[in-house]
Amino acid sequence: MRADQLETPVAVVDLDRLNANIERLQAYLNQHRIGNRPHIKTHKIPAIAHMQLNAGAIGITVQKIAEAEVMADAGIRDMFLPYNILGQAKLERLMHLTRRVSLSVSADSQTTVAGLAAAARREGACLPVLVEFDTGTGRCGVQTPQEAADLALYIVRQDNLRFTGVMAYPSNENTDAFVAALREILAHHGVAIEVVSGGGSPNMWNAHAYKEVTEHRAGTYVYGDRSLVNVGALKQDEVSFHVLATVVSRPTADRAILDAGSKTLTSDKSRGAEGYGLILEYPDAMINNLSEEHGWVDLSACRRKPEIGERVTILVNHCCVVNNMFNEVVGLRRGEVEVVWPVAARGLLT
Amino acid sequence: MRADQLETPVAVVDLDRLNANIERLQAYLNQHRIGNRPHIKTHKIPAIAHMQLNAGAIGITVQKIAEAEVMADAGIRDMFLPYNILGQAKLERLMHLTRRVSLSVSADSQTTVAGLAAAARREGACLPVLVEFDTGTGRCGVQTPQEAADLALYIVRQDNLRFTGVMAYPSNENTDAFVAALREILAHHGVAIEVVSGGGSPNMWNAHAYKEVTEHRAGTYVYGDRSLVNVGALKQDEVSFHVLATVVSRPTADRAILDAGSKTLTSDKSRGAEGYGLILEYPDAMINNLSEEHGWVDLSACRRKPEIGERVTILVNHCCVVNNMFNEVVGLRRGEVEVVWPVAARGLLT
Repeated sequence: MRADQLETPVAVVDLDRLNANIERLQAYLNQHRIGNRPHIKTHKIPAIAHMQLNAGAIGITVQKIAEAEVMADAGIRDMFLPYNILGQAKLERLMHLTRRVSLSVSADSQTTVAGLAAAARREGACLPVLVEFDTGTGRCGVQTPQEAADLALYIVRQDNLRFTGVMAYPSNENTDAFVAALREILAHHGVAIEVVSGGGSPNMWNAHAYKEVTEHRAGTYVYGDRSLVNVGALKQDEVSFHVLATVVSRPTADRAILDAGSKTLTSDKSRGAEGYGLILEYPDAMINNLSEEHGWVDLSACRRKPEIGERVTILVNHCCVVNNMFNEVVGLRRGEVEVVWPVAARGLLT
Repeated sequence: MRADQLETPVAVVDLDRLNANIERLQAYLNQHRIGNRPHIKTHKIPAIAHMQLNAGAIGITVQKIAEAEVMADAGIRDMFLPYNILGQAKLERLMHLTRRVSLSVSADSQTTVAGLAAAARREGACLPVLVEFDTGTGRCGVQTPQEAADLALYIVRQDNLRFTGVMAYPSNENTDAFVAALREILAHHGVAIEVVSGGGSPNMWNAHAYKEVTEHRAGTYVYGDRSLVNVGALKQDEVSFHVLATVVSRPTADRAILDAGSKTLTSDKSRGAEGYGLILEYPDAMINNLSEEHGWVDLSACRRKPEIGERVTILVNHCCVVNNMFNEVVGLRRGEVEVVWPVAARGLLT
């Protein structure tokens, strides 16, 4: 079947470009001796995770226990879960996972560490834990090297935990200084930092600039999207992921309506770009509004305009959340359907 | 099991409130002799659609053929699909549906009508079609009563289609004038308007003000959300749908991080309200940013602040898109889990 026979809206992945994106980042990280630990939250598809591992990744990154469970079922054996896991039920699932995969987690508080320690003790396991630090993002993470040291030493004091290092998202210009300061404090206590896990796709080609970073977690790079193109991390013709949609209405001379709305494209915007995606065939068109199953397109800047029934290709603003809207992603090779992948870990929010 | 034992993030529905919302709108529409044709896009759950029908709805509204297929499989027999259906594959599925359910569709162009007519001819069916008109929303729909009349007459000329009326979203102050003008034009051709289908939840208690409207399509009213509360269509303590989340990090005195991000709450904003949802236990807190699995909360305006591990209840901005992020919704009665409903039609985008 050809791509133009697929019913829309549909998420398609060009398999050659997908493979090229996987190989390109792997080669770069290999060259700089940085471990590649791709984040599977972007695709949530075991087959793509296996492609990443086969290319040379040292393991994967997952953001939810449920994602880890799906990937474990698919035979993947090395995972990092950079998330504060709290609560009896989740801690129990985490421990069950440690029976079948090599798993490390992160923490940014004594509360999280205490829970992990108690669960690991009950399990009789030894769980590797990284301290998350904040390099200015303003999300999770301890705020200072001293706080990081205090938490690291607290982990060291737990019998069933092993302090293995630190992590941040994304890697940035503050990363090295933070880690160096932390290393100095910890050295007084005879504690070493084995792993410094950095991350991000927008900054991926700069990963070698952060000398302390030992492994890199990138997600979006496998697909690419408008945001990644806009920051120059990927060229538009390297993007492997698109949404195909159909023009279902042309109510006025300057308006088209697509069969892709917020339940397909999501309401995520792209920094530095207007609208809810770029229509490749009509780059002057603007997807200026979404309702749940309709994309509203302003054609006033277009010389040529699409007709009712015409199919278009959308470069999405943010591929991770758009991939997450689909139950399946269709893999294409030179425009021919080669594989249909269930988005196995989507909707598994715990 | 009690709600506080559920792993987070989780979507919960208070069954008593759900039932009350269904009964309240039904009673109002009954009182004004307006047909109730609720839109199931909000919940995508057959059991809730059956509750709506049992309360007195004349049928349901669906937005996708796949939604119609799921509801048909669940035994629902009367549906309106207010969408321009285009393309061979979709038209064939539409016709297959007409074999087992009473189904009407909308159209706003001759292209759509011609496709419907050809498909109905091949099927040997007679498909009811409503003309969609635009009352100022700027989405789909013909622009003038004359255009509506031309399209209605085009439908009338098709052997296998039946012109049954018109539809708009939402019903508003332009609806009556548009329909009256159209009726006058069509009267000259001996064509009657049987059905005038209006819609919307924000305006639902005003449905009786639009005298031409014979049936009303509301979706959000079963659950309610921050948007519906903000426009005064539902009280906050009538909202049946919430997301339960957990505080997973407190990196600074004024910041909390929740385990609900854009893959849970979506990036939809609520008109007239800031942030990505309202935390009921901390109404002065502001969910001011989302990443995929983290909600960033500014606590600077809060006197009392949540601790790590504490669970919170989120009134979401837009329940339709949030419900759509979950594979399951948990039905609670007085805080006790009574039922777990698969969101049967979610992710079915065609």
